[in-house]
Parts: sequence; C-alpha cells; structure tokens
Amino acid sequence: MIEVAVFGAGRIGRIHAENVSSNPQARLRYVVDEDPEVAKNVAEALGAEAVDEEVALGDSSVGAVVVASSTPSHVPLIMGAARAGKAIFCEKPIDLDLGRVDEALDVVERTQVPFMVGFNRRFDPSFAKVKADLAAGAVGRVELVSITSRDPRPPDADYLARSGGLFRDMMIHDLDMARWLLGEEPVAVSATASALVSPEASQLGDVDTAVVVLKAASGAIAHISNSRRAVYGYDQRIEVLGAHGMVEAGNWRQTTVRRWSEDGVAEDRPPYFFLERYREAYVRELSHFFAALSDDETPLLVGPHDGRQALALAEAALLALATGRTVDVREFERRR
Amino acid sequence: MIEVAVFGAGRIGRIHAENVSSNPQARLRYVVDEDPEVAKNVAEALGAEAVDEEVALGDSSVGAVVVASSTPSHVPLIMGAARAGKAIFCEKPIDLDLGRVDEALDVVERTQVPFMVGFNRRFDPSFAKVKADLAAGAVGRVELVSITSRDPRPPDADYLARSGGLFRDMMIHDLDMARWLLGEEPVAVSATASALVSPEASQLGDVDTAVVVLKAASGAIAHISNSRRAVYGYDQRIEVLGAHGMVEAGNWRQTTVRRWSEDGVAEDRPPYFFLERYREAYVRELSHFFAALSDDETPLLVGPHDGRQALALAEAALLALATGRTVDVREFERRR
Amino acid sequence: MIEVAVFGAGRIGRIHAENVSSNPQARLRYVVDEDPEVAKNVAEALGAEAVDEEVALGDSSVGAVVVASSTPSHVPLIMGAARAGKAIFCEKPIDLDLGRVDEALDVVERTQVPFMVGFNRRFDPSFAKVKADLAAGAVGRVELVSITSRDPRPPDADYLARSGGLFRDMMIHDLDMARWLLGEEPVAVSATASALVSPEASQLGDVDTAVVVLKAASGAIAHISNSRRAVYGYDQRIEVLGAHGMVEAGNWRQTTVRRWSEDGVAEDRPPYFFLERYREAYVRELSHFFAALSDDETPLLVGPHDGRQALALAEAALLALATGRTVDVREFERRR
Amino acid sequence: MIEVAVFGAGRIGRIHAENVSSNPQARLRYVVDEDPEVAKNVAEALGAEAVDEEVALGDSSVGAVVVASSTPSHVPLIMGAARAGKAIFCEKPIDLDLGRVDEALDVVERTQVPFMVGFNRRFDPSFAKVKADLAAGAVGRVELVSITSRDPRPPDADYLARSGGLFRDMMIHDLDMARWLLGEEPVAVSATASALVSPEASQLGDVDTAVVVLKAASGAIAHISNSRRAVYGYDQRIEVLGAHGMVEAGNWRQTTVRRWSEDGVAEDRPPYFFLERYREAYVRELSHFFAALSDDETPLLVGPHDGRQALALAEAALLALATGRTVDVREFERRR
Repeated sequence: MIEVAVFGAGRIGRIHAENVSSNPQARLRYVVDEDPEVAKNVAEALGAEAVDEEVALGDSSVGAVVVASSTPSHVPLIMGAARAGKAIFCEKPIDLDLGRVDEALDVVERTQVPFMVGFNRRFDPSFAKVKADLAAGAVGRVELVSITSRDPRPPDADYLARSGGLFRDMMIHDLDMARWLLGEEPVAVSATASALVSPEASQLGDVDTAVVVLKAASGAIAHISNSRRAVYGYDQRIEVLGAHGMVEAGNWRQTTVRRWSEDGVAEDRPPYFFLERYREAYVRELSHFFAALSDDETPLLVGPHDGRQALALAEAALLALATGRTVDVREFERRR
Repeated sequence: MIEVAVFGAGRIGRIHAENVSSNPQARLRYVVDEDPEVAKNVAEALGAEAVDEEVALGDSSVGAVVVASSTPSHVPLIMGAARAGKAIFCEKPIDLDLGRVDEALDVVERTQVPFMVGFNRRFDPSFAKVKADLAAGAVGRVELVSITSRDPRPPDADYLARSGGLFRDMMIHDLDMARWLLGEEPVAVSATASALVSPEASQLGDVDTAVVVLKAASGAIAHISNSRRAVYGYDQRIEVLGAHGMVEAGNWRQTTVRRWSEDGVAEDRPPYFFLERYREAYVRELSHFFAALSDDETPLLVGPHDGRQALALAEAALLALATGRTVDVREFERRR
Repeated sequence: MIEVAVFGAGRIGRIHAENVSSNPQARLRYVVDEDPEVAKNVAEALGAEAVDEEVALGDSSVGAVVVASSTPSHVPLIMGAARAGKAIFCEKPIDLDLGRVDEALDVVERTQVPFMVGFNRRFDPSFAKVKADLAAGAVGRVELVSITSRDPRPPDADYLARSGGLFRDMMIHDLDMARWLLGEEPVAVSATASALVSPEASQLGDVDTAVVVLKAASGAIAHISNSRRAVYGYDQRIEVLGAHGMVEAGNWRQTTVRRWSEDGVAEDRPPYFFLERYREAYVRELSHFFAALSDDETPLLVGPHDGRQALALAEAALLALATGRTVDVREFERRR
Repeated sequence: MIEVAVFGAGRIGRIHAENVSSNPQARLRYVVDEDPEVAKNVAEALGAEAVDEEVALGDSSVGAVVVASSTPSHVPLIMGAARAGKAIFCEKPIDLDLGRVDEALDVVERTQVPFMVGFNRRFDPSFAKVKADLAAGAVGRVELVSITSRDPRPPDADYLARSGGLFRDMMIHDLDMARWLLGEEPVAVSATASALVSPEASQLGDVDTAVVVLKAASGAIAHISNSRRAVYGYDQRIEVLGAHGMVEAGNWRQTTVRRWSEDGVAEDRPPYFFLERYREAYVRELSHFFAALSDDETPLLVGPHDGRQALALAEAALLALATGRTVDVREFERRR
C-alpha cells in the first residue's frame, strides 16, 4: 500500500484525490492546498489529513505525490518531492517554460525517482486500444495520423492569461498523442492559426483555432486540428492510416438514444468536456502509476521525456507560426 | 442520512452494498448473508458490520433494507422488514409464485412502508431518456414497442433449475419495460418459444428463445424477443413507434474504435453482460430510492404493483405458450 | 436477346419497362395497358410498341412477359402467357385468392414455362448479402429472425379497398422474407393487430399495425412488425440471430450528412418509399430473370411456390388473428 | 434539346457519353476519340455517330461539347470549341500548366461561351447538402474545414508520369472543395508531403501522402489530408466547423449489413473508387450543365475561374513544399 500526498485540491486535484482514495494499491494520506479550507474539505471527505507542503514531503511514510496544483508551483514541488525521494505523478504541463522543465527533470533524473506526466488521453480506453492495435500491427507501418481536438467553449480571460496559450495549454495533449501514435519523434513542424472564437484570446495575442502538421524521420505525417469552441461538445477523435488500413477512435455520446422523425434522425451530444470524457482515463492513469510503483516489472508508460518533448513541440510550433516556416525540430533544439 | 442493511452479499448484493456505501444520502450499516464469512468480507471492505437478520431488522436506527439474497428468501424478508417498519428495496423477482407475491405485498400495503423493485433498466440512462422523450410527446401516441433482450450465454443448470424459467427470470425485465413504455396495461398476451441453445434448459422443460406479443386496451402492441445466447454480447435494445416518429435506444460498445481494412470495417462488441451494461443503472436506482425516502415530494417510480404485474404477465405468457391461445389478461386474473 | 412484353404501364410497370429497356439481355418489344394512351407514352419513350394483349401474346418472337398490371388481371394474364409458352415475371401478389393462385400455378406447372414472382427485397443488395452470409454459415443455425417493415404513410381508401388488406398486400413481402431467411417452412403462425393510424383501414375492417410470429419445424422463430405509418420514412430492416452471432441489414439514409449542434447530432432520413429504397432491387430482379432465361445453368431463385406460399401464410395469419389461436400451417392447408 | 459532342471515349468519356445520352435535355450526337474504333463502339451503343474533331466542331447544330479526352488535348479542344461557339464542359484539370490554362480561358472569356469544369464532388448529393447547409447558416461563420481524400491504391507508373503529380492530379479536387466550403479565397498555403506508398511516385520525384493547410483572409483555416492508398476503399470525407456547430459528410458503405460475432461487429467497405462513389455526381454535374444552358436564369455553378484557381493553389502548395515556407497566394500570383 503506497501512502500518497495530493497537492492541489481544485477541480482536477479533487478528482485525483478521489481516485487515489478508491485505488486498492494506494492510500490517500495528505491533501495540500494553498487554501487550507479547501484542503480540509477534500481531506475530510476522503478520510485523509490536510497539511502543508513541509509536513507532506517530510513524512517518510509517504511514497508518492500527485502534483495537481497551479502550473507555476509544479517545478518547485517536483524538485522538493524528488529530493525527498517520492515518486511523482505530475499534471500536465510540467511548466510553461522549457528551460525550467529541463531544470526540474534534471533533479528527477539525478534522484532517480519514478516520474509520470498526466497525459490522460493515453489512458482513455478507446485511444489505448488504438495504440494497442498499432502495436499489434493492425495497420502496418503508420503513414498518416489525424488528431481532432476541440473544446466545447473557450476558457475565461483569467485562465487564458495564465494558460501559456493554446499551443502549450491545449495542443500539448495532441502533440503528445501525435508522438505516441507516430511511434517516433517529429522532425519538422509547421503551424497555421487564427483568433476566431475568443475575443479574450485575441486580446492576449493568443489564437483559438489552429492546425499543426508534424513530419517524422520516416516520412510519416501527423496533423492536429484544434479549436477552443465546438458548441456540440468536447470533440476528441484520432485516426491512424497505415499500409494495411486505418484505425480510428471517435466520440462517445451521452446516451444511445435516436429519435426518428420527419426531420431526420436526431442523436445525442458527446460528453460535455474532459471531466466527463476522460473520467475513466483519470482512474486508469493513477492505477497505472501505482501498479508500476508496486511492481518492478511494470514500466511507467509516460516518463519525464514525454512531458518535456510535448512542450518542446509546442515551442517549435509557436516558432513555425511566428516565422511562417517549417521548423526543423533538431535544429530548434540545437539553437536553444 | 438513512442507515441501511443489505441482505445478500453475493454478486448483486455486493454491488448494491458498494452503491449504498458511496451514496451520499445513505450509510451502509449492516451486511447480512447466509454465509457469515461472505457477509464479513463485504462488510469489512465497506466499513459496515456483518450481522444476522434479527439484529439488522431489530435495530431501530436502520431505515431501509436492500433485499438481494436468494429469491426464496425475498418474501419472508419483505414481510419481516415491513413489520419492522423499514423501507424496502427488493431485487427482482419478488418471488416466483404470484400467490406468495400477493401475500408479501399485502403486508407491505398494510404496513405502508415504501417499497421498490429493482427493475434496473428503468434507470439505464438511455432507456430513461426514451421514457422521458415519450412523456414529452416526442412520438405522440405510442403504437408499437419493440424490445430485444438477449443474454451472452445461457446460465448453468443450477441457476436454471432455480430460475423459474425464462419468462419469470429473464423476460420479467422486458415485461416491465413493455408496461412502462406502453404507458398502459397489456390486456392480451401471446407467446411462441423454443429450446434451441441450452440443452440444460431443454432438459428442465424450459425454453431459451422466445417471442411474446402484448396488446394494450388502446390497441398499442409490444413485442419482446428473447434469447439466452447472443455470442456477441448482451443485446439490450428498445424502440417505440408512434404517430410522430420513433425513439430507440441501442447497445453501447466497449470502445469507440473502428478498424478499416480490406475486409471492411470492424467495431467493438457491446459490454459483456448486465453488470457492465447496467453499472450506472444500479447506482441510479438506489439513488432514486434514497432520494425518494429523503424527500416527501419525490415519489418512488417503481412500486409494489410493478413488481407484481410483470410476474403476472410472465404467468399469462406461460399460459399462452401452453395453450397456443392469446390470453386475455383480465380473464386470467379473474380465474386465479 | 429476349423480346419482352410488359403488361401494365402504371408506376411500377413503367419502372419494369425502363429496366427491361436498359437490360443488355432483353429488348422491350411491347407495352400493354388498359389505357392505350398510357401504354403509348411509355412505349414511345422507350422505343417500344403499344399494343393490346392479343398482339403481345400472339407474337411468337416474344419470349417473356412482365405482369405489372392491376392484381385482378394477373391470373388471366399468367394463364394466357403460360399457354402461349412465354416465360413470366409477375408482380406480387399473384392474386388475393389462394384458390385462384393455385389454378394459375397449375397452368404454369403444366406448361412448364419459367415463372418468377417479383419479391424485390430478395434482390436488395443488403438483404441479398445477409442471405449470402447465412448460406456461408456466418451465424450458424438460424434461431431468431426479426423483420421490421413500415410504410411512410397509409395508402388512400381506394388502394386499401382493392389491396386485400395489410396481410396480403404489405406483409406478404415480409412473410416471403421470413421463409427465405429461416431457410425452412413456418409450421405455426400467430398474429396480433390493430387499426391505429388509418381511419380508412379501420372503416374497411382492415388493420394497419401488426405483429406476426412464425415458428418453423426446427423451432426457429421469426417475427414481423408492420405499420402503415412511419413518418420518418420507409423503414426496412432485418436481423437474423444464430448460434455464432447475428447478421442484420438496416436502413440507408438519403445522404451521409451529419449536423452537430448544441441540440445533438442530426442525420438524414431514410429513402422515402419503396421506389427509392428498392430502385436497385428492381433492376437486379429483372437481371436475374433474364439471366436465368438466357442460361440453362442459372436457376430462377423465386419460383411459383414462393409466390403461393407467402399468400398462404398471410391467410393463416388472418385466421390466427380472427381466432386468437396459433394456427398450425399444415392443418390449415389440409382443411382448405 | 441540346446536341452534344463528347471528346474522349475512355473510361470517363464513356460515362459522360452515357449520361448525356440519358439526359432529357441533351442528345448525344457525336463521339470523338483518337482511336476511331473506340469512338465507334461507344457511339453505336448509344445511338450516336463517331466522327473526327473537325466534323464535330464544324457542325453548327452541336450546341455543347464535353471534353473528356487526355489532359494535353484539353486546351486546343477548348480553344477550338470556344471559337466555334460551343458551350464547354471540361474534365479537370483544364491543363497541368497554369500559363496554358490562362491562355485557354482567355479565349473562353473573349468568346463568351458557357464553360464548366467537371469538379464532380460539388455534385455529390452529400457534399452538396453540406454546402446547402452552410449557405443556410447551419454552422454560422466557417472556421475550420477538414477534407480527407484517399484513393484505394496508387495509379500505375504510366498514369503517374502523365498526371502532373499528386497536387495537380488528385489534390486539385480537394483544393476546389476547400475554396468552395470556405466560401472565400485562400490567401496562404503550407504543405507537408512524403513518398511512402508508391515506389513509382517516389522514382518520379512525386509524393503520395500529403497534408496541405490553407488560410483565408477571414482567418478561417482548411486542411486537406491526401493519400494514394487506403486499402479499405476510396475515403472521401469533409467536415466544416463554425460558430454554431459542425456539418460533415462521410463515406457510404457498399451495403448496410452488419455482422455481430464474438470478434465484434463487422460492417461493409466503402464503395471502391470514384466511379462507384461519384456515379450520381457524374449524372448531376451534366444535368446541371444542360439545365443552365437551357435556362438563362440558372447560372453555371462551376466556372472557368474555379478550374484555374484550384490549379493555382496546387502550384502554390508545390512551392510551399519545395521551400518549407508558407506561401502568400497573392504574392505568388504577382510573381508569376
């Protein structure tokens, strides 16, 4: 049984705390939040204790931490937890600055603590099945990956201001998916984007509608299509074309109901947003984390490099957007 | 907070115990099972106490019981719980004998305890949406109801021997759905059936493949198609045709994955069986039960009459099958 | 090249005339209609000649006739054509009276002319593929056949008065499908029906909503669900359950367009009615007819017995409806 | 009735000849082909005459020509037909060289003959419905257009050598669709491509897998995903996201059959290739052409500019691919 401290008791922290609490391999020991009242509420509901960071990291019985606090707090928490020898599960993004990410991961590497980034989509049952199919050779060599990812509505101005922009905040998930589905590193990135749906994004110099195209060394191509607004609900789809066919995973609907009338056939909407769509993925990513910690044979599937690389691609895409040029990713890394 | 005792700690009892345990309006107090070891395991995992029937029914702090033990024990438990003034949630069927059902419900009526039958399908989100659509007039007057209900594989001989046969054990759910979707009582029943897939059923004189047709006083018709074996998984579909169109609810799939190849397009199977398909329905039926107990304004949606009437239709269908005649349900009731 | 005379130049006759005209193995020679003007219009548009019955049947170069005139004219035309040695393609039903059908088919048998009934659904590409799948063992032994067949709107009073009623006019197609998909003769028939949607049908003592259940000697069951009104369009679906799974064929839609909005997902309607849905089937049934005539190796797939047997089942179903009893089909035949 | 000469009696010319022949507003008068035997076969089967170019263009009774011969012959035929005052329907591409296209269209403009390019997809019933929905405001302002277009298998080396390459030969359709669905001209183009599936394409310096991204002045973005090989069949899909939702049109299947088994659910493949998928579109594009010629009120929906502009975008995309830069389309035009 792994004793766990969860940092952050906001919307996503609470979900992680609940999933730790109901995980048979883990025990929720501490909840930490900058607002002690919030920490206390979550802790009490789940039979845990609300403490401050020092207590949580200082307790040697704590084997793992879940970092789900605000993005700027991630790096210091990672460094502190790594130095305290705790296994770390960190919500994406590790940080909005690639330099700081590298510093934090340096400490992780030196301390050799297990480290996993919360790229939840890899644990979505449908997306995971696509990946398993690819691994089993279902489409042969991968040639073309298509990722559609659209939020139901743009976030508010506050969130946008702290988000790091669409590429680092939203597309980072899709960039990770692209790497994962391609099965190799992208070597070239191009980007096209507009501010069409969110005046707040526009005012911040951010975009809300974007297409990014990635090319891998093998010649395989991935394209990502993002929008901050799909009024019909959270639109999350992937498809992978290869030599022997295509595998795709699409949207769920809220129910299986269909209404046939003179106007045609009406079906239900997709689940509203990420909390609904990825509910199962949130459970499974922590199950995987604790299973890997409990069993030396099970490797962690999403390591520090994955968290870093998705951000590097976001940076490269931003450069491509700014210059109107296809960015050579290796050149981009060399120049940093 | 309603204190609850769960009777029966087998497969379905355990699910109810867990759902009581995580329900914010209820508190799981006692688990009772004829095997004390089984009761203890379930109770301990959920922070409850394993006791015997007398203790559970004798504790005046217990406000409600969940009856999920073996079918023959339902009637005595219902009577005992009713006399002890507990609200009762009872798994289907109340009993396999209509006379005994009537006796038990007599006690329920005299003691005026809230009583609900576990017709879980009414709480399936898709089926519930169909019913809500009908109530909202989506198809106008109901004319034709079609219910398809197939198990993935036949039960074993032991289960079959105690089941009461396909009509009382399996179709009873569909007969309840037919009443619910028709929105009125069937007045005529005809039946056709065969033993095609289960030698054990055949040996017991039971059937495993059946079609029953019901007609209501308005002339609306419902037909139910049952099989004990659909190798592709639990097949649970309804459709309702009316003056303004049709509303249907179909099967979920295990994932949204599709594989396109030279051979065509391959999709995933439906969820395996009732525990997977109706997981959410099991949660919702107890939520409804506790919500109704907690709030005088909320009526119980599935009452004693519903549990009794589905069994009466099963009996009428058996008579129709035996005689090759359409059975007049009111005549059938008069003659009992 | 087979020279062909088409009898009847109404809606369905015109379609057959066009299909004969564009069939590479046939040549449309004559069009015959009780209204010479109508015959002339169709004939001229297709490069054929409008003549009367005597001319058409008297011309020894005519090898085949297509009987698509009004139902009462079928039997005399069949007898005349058979005696003239012509191959006969006859629209369903052969006649509304089983005795007259038997008389006509007697002549066909004695004259040994090839005879095919226009059960167009057998030539629908999707339904034909289901049958081919069954023949290839896709589901193993057939256990349960489900046929849904609904017209978009009830016919007018005139049509209804001459139709022979829902069982002989509309369900006859489904009864043929049931025999074809079961792969054996039904031995028992039960029926439930109502007049719910068409006051005209009701006034004529006819029904417009019906469920018929058929059982074969093997125990396999088929059920047919009919309505004269499905406001969303012509609803034509079949499914066949067997030991190894299910094969089904559903409705087409008018386009593949889907609209995703805040209200959900809207898709297109099915094709409006039989002329749209079975357009390809009309072409294919005549192709099959002419191919079989042109090649001694190719047997006619829908023979006189099929036309007769579907009507016999309609009669048996009517008896079942009138008596509220399951009708033993062999007993029914013996008593005629 | 418009008298028509069809140039080219190969695969696509034959289809046009048949569609002219069965069009009620047109009469197929002449078939012209460089192989007189081929011309004769097609002409005879359709009741037309096989003649040479001079006769066809010299006959003043001919009102319209259909140019479906080899691409290099298009420009001289267009010029000849325009000077002879014939209305022109020209298969895509007008020519592989933008300069020659401009010369040909100059003559068309000066002679004022009606001119239409065979962008058949605009006449696909599903795609046309998407466009109609957009025009009716179904999604509000267009923000993001996604076009997936994949052939079942790469063409042979001969075809590839004469094709002008993937961008001019295959993507030209999608570039036209992008302009049409965006409802405005793209102003920026970027391109990513690889040779992954066709060694022959690779040897010719051509690509077979490509993603092109277009941006319009409003900021709306379109992306096109092409592959020369989708072993599951011709994959033709579009989707348009806007302020109020999304409209999409997907693939048909060859039948509606579904097989449910222990392995999951198997559906049919899409239609094999363009002749099957766009059969109806070929009929409708000529219907539109003849309807517009017959009626001064009906404007031609696909004019000379459309044919030219799709090629210009293909050229711009090739430049983008060669330079790794986003190409400014107006700048590109100025520099030519």
